[in-house]
Amino acid sequence: MATLSNATKNALALGSFDTKAELYCFEIARPEVGPNDVSIHIQYCGMCHSDCHACNGDWGLDSWPIAPGHEIAGVVTAIGSSVSKFKVGEKVGVGCMVESCRNCDMCQDGLEQHCPNMIQTYGSIFPKGKGDNMKDAEGNHTNGGYSTAITVNEHFVFHIPEGMDMKYAGILLCAGITTYSPLNRHILQKGGGKGKKVAIVGFGGLGQMAIKLAKAMGVDTVTILSRSDKKKEQASKLGCEYIAYSNEDSVKEATRSFDVVLDTVSAPHDIASLLPVLKVGGAYVLLGAVGKPFEISAMSLIFNRYAIEGSLIGGVPETQEMLDFCAKHQIVPEYRVIDAKEANQQFKAMMNGESLADRCVIDISTLKNLEVVDSKLENGPAQ
Amino acid sequence: MATLSNATKNALALGSFDTKAELYCFEIARPEVGPNDVSIHIQYCGMCHSDCHACNGDWGLDSWPIAPGHEIAGVVTAIGSSVSKFKVGEKVGVGCMVESCRNCDMCQDGLEQHCPNMIQTYGSIFPKGKGDNMKDAEGNHTNGGYSTAITVNEHFVFHIPEGMDMKYAGILLCAGITTYSPLNRHILQKGGGKGKKVAIVGFGGLGQMAIKLAKAMGVDTVTILSRSDKKKEQASKLGCEYIAYSNEDSVKEATRSFDVVLDTVSAPHDIASLLPVLKVGGAYVLLGAVGKPFEISAMSLIFNRYAIEGSLIGGVPETQEMLDFCAKHQIVPEYRVIDAKEANQQFKAMMNGESLADRCVIDISTLKNLEVVDSKLENGPAQ
Repeated sequence: MATLSNATKNALALGSFDTKAELYCFEIARPEVGPNDVSIHIQYCGMCHSDCHACNGDWGLDSWPIAPGHEIAGVVTAIGSSVSKFKVGEKVGVGCMVESCRNCDMCQDGLEQHCPNMIQTYGSIFPKGKGDNMKDAEGNHTNGGYSTAITVNEHFVFHIPEGMDMKYAGILLCAGITTYSPLNRHILQKGGGKGKKVAIVGFGGLGQMAIKLAKAMGVDTVTILSRSDKKKEQASKLGCEYIAYSNEDSVKEATRSFDVVLDTVSAPHDIASLLPVLKVGGAYVLLGAVGKPFEISAMSLIFNRYAIEGSLIGGVPETQEMLDFCAKHQIVPEYRVIDAKEANQQFKAMMNGESLADRCVIDISTLKNLEVVDSKLENGPAQ
Repeated sequence: MATLSNATKNALALGSFDTKAELYCFEIARPEVGPNDVSIHIQYCGMCHSDCHACNGDWGLDSWPIAPGHEIAGVVTAIGSSVSKFKVGEKVGVGCMVESCRNCDMCQDGLEQHCPNMIQTYGSIFPKGKGDNMKDAEGNHTNGGYSTAITVNEHFVFHIPEGMDMKYAGILLCAGITTYSPLNRHILQKGGGKGKKVAIVGFGGLGQMAIKLAKAMGVDTVTILSRSDKKKEQASKLGCEYIAYSNEDSVKEATRSFDVVLDTVSAPHDIASLLPVLKVGGAYVLLGAVGKPFEISAMSLIFNRYAIEGSLIGGVPETQEMLDFCAKHQIVPEYRVIDAKEANQQFKAMMNGESLADRCVIDISTLKNLEVVDSKLENGPAQ
């Protein structure tokens, strides 16, 4: 088991000691600020399905214990001597990344998420000799936002706009930017939403965000494609059209209807059968990290000039832009604040493809009420 | 066997009487011009691999005999009373389409190739009550440019620019527009070629065209991806870089190198393994109609923001634009003019994945030297 350094353990974390992915409360050492770093007292952290993948071995991580969480909202408690963007006391957020090389074309273009040396907020191994902002953890893996504190280079810290509630701000840094980025490219940057029709496959946290963002961009209609009729009423309440895609006739009726499809489903599903709902020249954007390769017909792509694309969160500039867009358009994700002791239940639910709410956000102030362990205890996880 | 109408048989054609795809010379009836039609004396017609698919049953056609050919160059011999774009004696071309609905969004947007009612130059069945420009053939299939004449609605006829040789003009209406359209979208319409790197998979007729067009658009480098080292010298002569994609290391070295990949290969091949040569945000454009579905990983698309797209020839306005672009930049495809009696040999070669030349063009004036048959003869095809 990789161990954290001998530095003072100055923060509480909620994380997993093995691939059972049960969450325990333990102490970790967060570093002092380096010249370009910001130390943050975390108030809220959203729970994302990726958090489970990191903890349960799906992503091949085997450094323990690990605290996940990349939807972080908190308050600056200290800044390094060269920090110019932030002040102590300011409300800030941290998303999926905490470092990148800053030199490659990707970093130069503000696409840090595609930098080959990008460091994820949790589960990344810091390269030797790198990571002045994470120096105590050098050689160890990063730990995320299920924690009372974090220290991050200011480049990867975001301003939370005036008036935005801290409870949900973190959610925007994952589900928000994941859906904003493709809509930005395909709607905002192509003349706006007027006359455009967008379809969203899947109606979970990402789907909900996509609806709100697409509507704020002024698209004519947003249509939910969900497996069954179950969520039809819910879609209607949000002012959306609805297609149950298990019904082949409904899908057929929608042939060549949409300019953009955002597919938010991360379980294997039949993408080829949904493709024909795109208009000629349309883009089918995959956001859900389906592990199993899928089959596609070149003929279908050629005869309709379809594009199948992927999209991964967003870079630093686009993420701040998204936060500002959400503040301006008063976009609030669907969420529920939970106590840290409920986190295990939600973790299990997510692993079973369910959820206590569209998005759960841990009230990090409740971590202190949990029993702190040195290693995994026999008497079960934190509750 | 579907028969042509009883109208006067006024043209010679070279076509197939069954899925053996052997070419015979026979007589067909081309209609008089309707108000909006142009009658054309065909001088040259390029031979495309699609011609084989139409004749050998690959596309499920079973109307015989059929004359293929959609790379047509000729001279106007008659115009309808309402024709405004063309004059008798003018040099013109006809490509892959001869009609569409003219009303749908596709037709309104100049994307007639995607109109659900588009009529292909050969092998399409004209809808009952439609097709005033093909009225003798109503209910029968269209016949293409391996023929001495054709009558087409002026909307689907192109001006061959001053100074462009008739011998190769037809080639541009298939291989030219097929490669121009995706390069137009990804290079010309995105600020031009400066600083861009383009890769071409496959080095046949389409590949050759793509090289010339990309260079005329000012891209920094064009790289050929071909299976083996066999064509390396040929690529070098054309000023292209070269990667033999059977060599995994070479492909790996080229990771994230290209803004656009045009894949011109129509035989099944491992697309997933070539995808990583794209830069982040790049587009892999499929032009070859590979029938068998292929596998792709959502992870590869997501983590690199890759797009896999299809592209199908081009619409009417873009096709004329391409001809004018080729004239302006003096783009001449690689080709060889053959006698009609050599057409069978080239047809067989294409079906075997080979070719007498990068592109063969039939000198239609030599059709008159062939024996004319009423039906398939026992003593073998035209030679």
